[in-house]
Amino acid sequence: MSMTPLLDHIQGPADLKDLSAEQLEALAEEVRQFITASVSQTGGHLASNLGVVELTIAMHRVFDFARDRLVWDVGHQCYAHKILTGRRDVFANLRQADGLSGFPDPEESPYDAFRVGHAGTSIATALGLALGAQHRGTDERVVAFVGDASIVNGTNFEALNNLGLVRRQLLIVLNDNSMAIDVTPGAMAHYLARVRLSHTYEDLRKTTQSILDHLPVIGRPMGEALENFKKTIRMQISPSRLFESLNIPYFGPVDGHDIISLIELFQALSDLDRPALLHVYTRKGKGFGPADTDPCRFHSTGPFEIRGQSVEVAPGPRSFTAAFSDAIVDVARADDRVVAITAAMPDGTGLTAFREAFPDRFYDVGIAESAAVDLAAGLARKGLRPFVCIYSTFLQRGFDHIFQEVALQGLPVIFCIDRAGLVGSDGPTHHGLMDIGFLRMLPSMVIAAPACESEMRQALMLAVRSETPIAIRYPRDVVRNGRIDAACEVGPFEPPHGRIVRQGRDPIVLAALGPVLDRALDAADRLEEHGVSVTVFNARFAKPVDPALPEAVAAGKTVVTLEDHYRIGGFGSAVLETVAAGGPAGADGRVLCLGVPDTFVPAAERASQLDAAGMSVEAVVQIVLAHCDAAHKSRFKQTL
Amino acid sequence: MSMTPLLDHIQGPADLKDLSAEQLEALAEEVRQFITASVSQTGGHLASNLGVVELTIAMHRVFDFARDRLVWDVGHQCYAHKILTGRRDVFANLRQADGLSGFPDPEESPYDAFRVGHAGTSIATALGLALGAQHRGTDERVVAFVGDASIVNGTNFEALNNLGLVRRQLLIVLNDNSMAIDVTPGAMAHYLARVRLSHTYEDLRKTTQSILDHLPVIGRPMGEALENFKKTIRMQISPSRLFESLNIPYFGPVDGHDIISLIELFQALSDLDRPALLHVYTRKGKGFGPADTDPCRFHSTGPFEIRGQSVEVAPGPRSFTAAFSDAIVDVARADDRVVAITAAMPDGTGLTAFREAFPDRFYDVGIAESAAVDLAAGLARKGLRPFVCIYSTFLQRGFDHIFQEVALQGLPVIFCIDRAGLVGSDGPTHHGLMDIGFLRMLPSMVIAAPACESEMRQALMLAVRSETPIAIRYPRDVVRNGRIDAACEVGPFEPPHGRIVRQGRDPIVLAALGPVLDRALDAADRLEEHGVSVTVFNARFAKPVDPALPEAVAAGKTVVTLEDHYRIGGFGSAVLETVAAGGPAGADGRVLCLGVPDTFVPAAERASQLDAAGMSVEAVVQIVLAHCDAAHKSRFKQTL
Repeated sequence: MSMTPLLDHIQGPADLKDLSAEQLEALAEEVRQFITASVSQTGGHLASNLGVVELTIAMHRVFDFARDRLVWDVGHQCYAHKILTGRRDVFANLRQADGLSGFPDPEESPYDAFRVGHAGTSIATALGLALGAQHRGTDERVVAFVGDASIVNGTNFEALNNLGLVRRQLLIVLNDNSMAIDVTPGAMAHYLARVRLSHTYEDLRKTTQSILDHLPVIGRPMGEALENFKKTIRMQISPSRLFESLNIPYFGPVDGHDIISLIELFQALSDLDRPALLHVYTRKGKGFGPADTDPCRFHSTGPFEIRGQSVEVAPGPRSFTAAFSDAIVDVARADDRVVAITAAMPDGTGLTAFREAFPDRFYDVGIAESAAVDLAAGLARKGLRPFVCIYSTFLQRGFDHIFQEVALQGLPVIFCIDRAGLVGSDGPTHHGLMDIGFLRMLPSMVIAAPACESEMRQALMLAVRSETPIAIRYPRDVVRNGRIDAACEVGPFEPPHGRIVRQGRDPIVLAALGPVLDRALDAADRLEEHGVSVTVFNARFAKPVDPALPEAVAAGKTVVTLEDHYRIGGFGSAVLETVAAGGPAGADGRVLCLGVPDTFVPAAERASQLDAAGMSVEAVVQIVLAHCDAAHKSRFKQTL
Repeated sequence: MSMTPLLDHIQGPADLKDLSAEQLEALAEEVRQFITASVSQTGGHLASNLGVVELTIAMHRVFDFARDRLVWDVGHQCYAHKILTGRRDVFANLRQADGLSGFPDPEESPYDAFRVGHAGTSIATALGLALGAQHRGTDERVVAFVGDASIVNGTNFEALNNLGLVRRQLLIVLNDNSMAIDVTPGAMAHYLARVRLSHTYEDLRKTTQSILDHLPVIGRPMGEALENFKKTIRMQISPSRLFESLNIPYFGPVDGHDIISLIELFQALSDLDRPALLHVYTRKGKGFGPADTDPCRFHSTGPFEIRGQSVEVAPGPRSFTAAFSDAIVDVARADDRVVAITAAMPDGTGLTAFREAFPDRFYDVGIAESAAVDLAAGLARKGLRPFVCIYSTFLQRGFDHIFQEVALQGLPVIFCIDRAGLVGSDGPTHHGLMDIGFLRMLPSMVIAAPACESEMRQALMLAVRSETPIAIRYPRDVVRNGRIDAACEVGPFEPPHGRIVRQGRDPIVLAALGPVLDRALDAADRLEEHGVSVTVFNARFAKPVDPALPEAVAAGKTVVTLEDHYRIGGFGSAVLETVAAGGPAGADGRVLCLGVPDTFVPAAERASQLDAAGMSVEAVVQIVLAHCDAAHKSRFKQTL
């Protein structure tokens, strides 16, 4: 017999209409079981998805998101939504090549409005959709679904501030799963937590009833209904105060696991003729013991083994994140000017150990990348050495702040850019393929790309010594030991200098930036077999470019650059620019650039993404061989 | 006799200590007169500076900003500050080459903490400074000075949300000059305006007295003092509600032109042991009739002639902004899908006429560039054609949103990027030298650079037809008529195609992007005199690159690129990449790239900034001649 008898009959949201209250509750349990079992196989986001099952069912029961629009914030909590909208059967391929995206994706389903993955954008985007409908005079409904950790992002605040532009329906669902004051930083989280602590479960039921009593407002002015609703709500701390200051009609808080009440609430709120915010309490990780107790651990997870209510996770090989984690603790121990800043990702960026060792030198500003950068600038101005630890893709949010507050002031802020390059299963929203491109336009910026653990440590030590801004980029990948380690361990790590790690006899240099060095070394081995002896160069820095590279070109050699970044604007471009700047007599040789082509790269294994980007060892070998062939023909032509 | 007898004796803030109350008030008038007279000669920001004279004097009387730190938001309101800190004598050179910056600049004075120009950063930066002092255990005081138009920026909100990190003094001065609900958009402005309308001038005096009665709080818990203060404040709408929700101790509102009270308030607040916000009312343009009546007109102005209380401004030659302004109105008239979005700059971006013609199709979201981009994405998803009009330098704030909400979805949002390139007198914070670099990394993005008015119109028509994102960049410059206009008028404006506007006989192509085309044409004339006949190419698009350029290189020609952008990452790099991508046999000729070198460019006339960047006509001529010479020698060498 199936473990999920009800879910088996849900082909789409329309099938929810026939279910009874009891069946809907049972369905929620089935969905939760399905998610847990599925994520234990594939890895993925768990805790957040378990928390929003009832909410998702209730929304789909009331709205028709084939026509109505549902905009997720971040989007990692969309699994129940995917399951209910016909994508259950492909869940086994979650976050895999040609499989289901871990985030909403309109190319997958008409039920997905936007392809997202970054936080802070749902309200502004939904605002645009609502204004679009307002222009067009269409009546589809718009829902923005945002968590308490994302609503504090500056862009969401900017959107809340502009909600008054909308003169039609627009519902913001605030999914508040703040577990305690300590976990989510910031004043708004503190405020929400105080609100939460100030009332009982019974209060939530009364609030729900009060909302339902006063809505729908057909034939009655909204203001009056709201006033009546507010009069019946008597909590110690008014949850509406903050939102009302911004003129946002506020309803709640209500229980996010009471599926029947939620359906009634959505029915009542779905036809309001103005924007409104519904504040819903949920529990992250609900229903699966380990995730319920430790939701941080199960925010994003690899595959794991369920043993009753406990789990076993196989430890992975050592990652760049782990290497960074150890290195920054050591660097901070030796230099008390070192402080570290994260934007809501202490785990992901490898700062947990640092936070434990130096609680007073650690700042988590929440999902607020731009403020994190400015904060670091202030700290640096006071003589400290702030390490700003933000994934490459999210650092895009701080670009202008890196420009104005850091680079323009020439301040020694250190950007530790994890997930630089292709990231594998998170897919196109999460790749870090532009950091070299936007950072190297900034005068005074140094960009380092350590290829191994030893270089990671040296890069951090260099950064602490630096009096100007520096960025250190490294991928979501394991740190290789053995050959690459030995190859890069020699010599001081000092801009602009890269290192020759293998001297060839032919006039061809493979110049690799970062850990793709291993592919260059493998290609060199294979080329030896073809009788071609290339030099392998560990570039170490994308900015400044080692003058050895344009010199090699000027001497008639061919430089082949390899990088885990868009070919546009990356390290290869930097080398091309340096060669071109050599002037009329600058280039007798050639530069060939390998990197990620000009497309959005879908989810897959990271290694195969690099292969598909034209950087498989075989591809590198073939490019060099083709070049040798062409160069030979060209020499032949000249002789004629 | 001097018009400014008191000001004449102010060499630095210390000289304020000896002045009586009457003298301080008289000094404020003198400073105002000095600013008005000075700006009428040099141009600059006027209205905002006239509004904060008393505030500035009061701050300098209480704080010592050689040691204490004052962080301005945007910074265009720092003139009185500069005048009082020893820079009055050089005010005649405001915003000129080797002159005084129009914004704070630590290189000018130890009284300037940060070099700024963009909005939204003061609170986060001050937060960093305060945390730095907290770490170091030093007792200098930190003040963030922020206007009501900037405090709504998302980064400021993120910083307010994190104010709890600070356990020492940090004063935020909210300079509220909102003139009416209509002028500044957004809920917070509406809230502040309602607060403002809900009380009388007498209320402000009572509030001030109440603050002074309850502070300093030495020996008394801050919470108690605050409670007592609040009890005595009885306004219709509580001005503190919004800030208190975020746990920010709030004081005010108080009168920002009552210099004596301000001094007492700053004295009382300067020693608080925690962050606080002082809400101050000022009048933009105060004391100078025309600026008082029309502060928008006098926000940023060129030189003008004062005739009593009226002014005369000489109309300038036709600008790209004016060309855009007319073109978008025409395009919108022909296509009702066109809507326009600005981030608080309807005048600057040339949208005033559009707003008048199509009030329902115009959105001003305030200083909220990232939300503006998301909003546009939502509108585009609904079938509209949103034109997002943001200066190049401020568009940096929306980079990640352009990536995720627009490019990743492939939505037809149109970015109209004014002030792209060197901007002249506003200096390094305001140049738009990176837009090509960050935008061209985005797959599917088209980047157009019209060289003349006719191409501006064609670019807008192309944009409306486009089904994918497109950016149109143009400088803060006049639209040239005559030759350049005639040269670029021919042929359809369609990516990737540029146009040969002058066919030469020698194998040299000057490929210019945008209006620097005029310099290429002039250089071609001059080269003719040296017996060199070059081809001039109007590139029109930075992405995609016209294949004619790599083909020219493959055919052995030399392409010299010219662009008003950093050489790093710009159009020249795009050409280099395209040539390199041609493979081993791709390049027989050369590419030389002219553009702005890797430095921060100080304020000066725009034309001389382009000259200094190596793009004077003479420099272009010399580079081509040097190249011809080298190429000749190289051919000679081969013959041997």
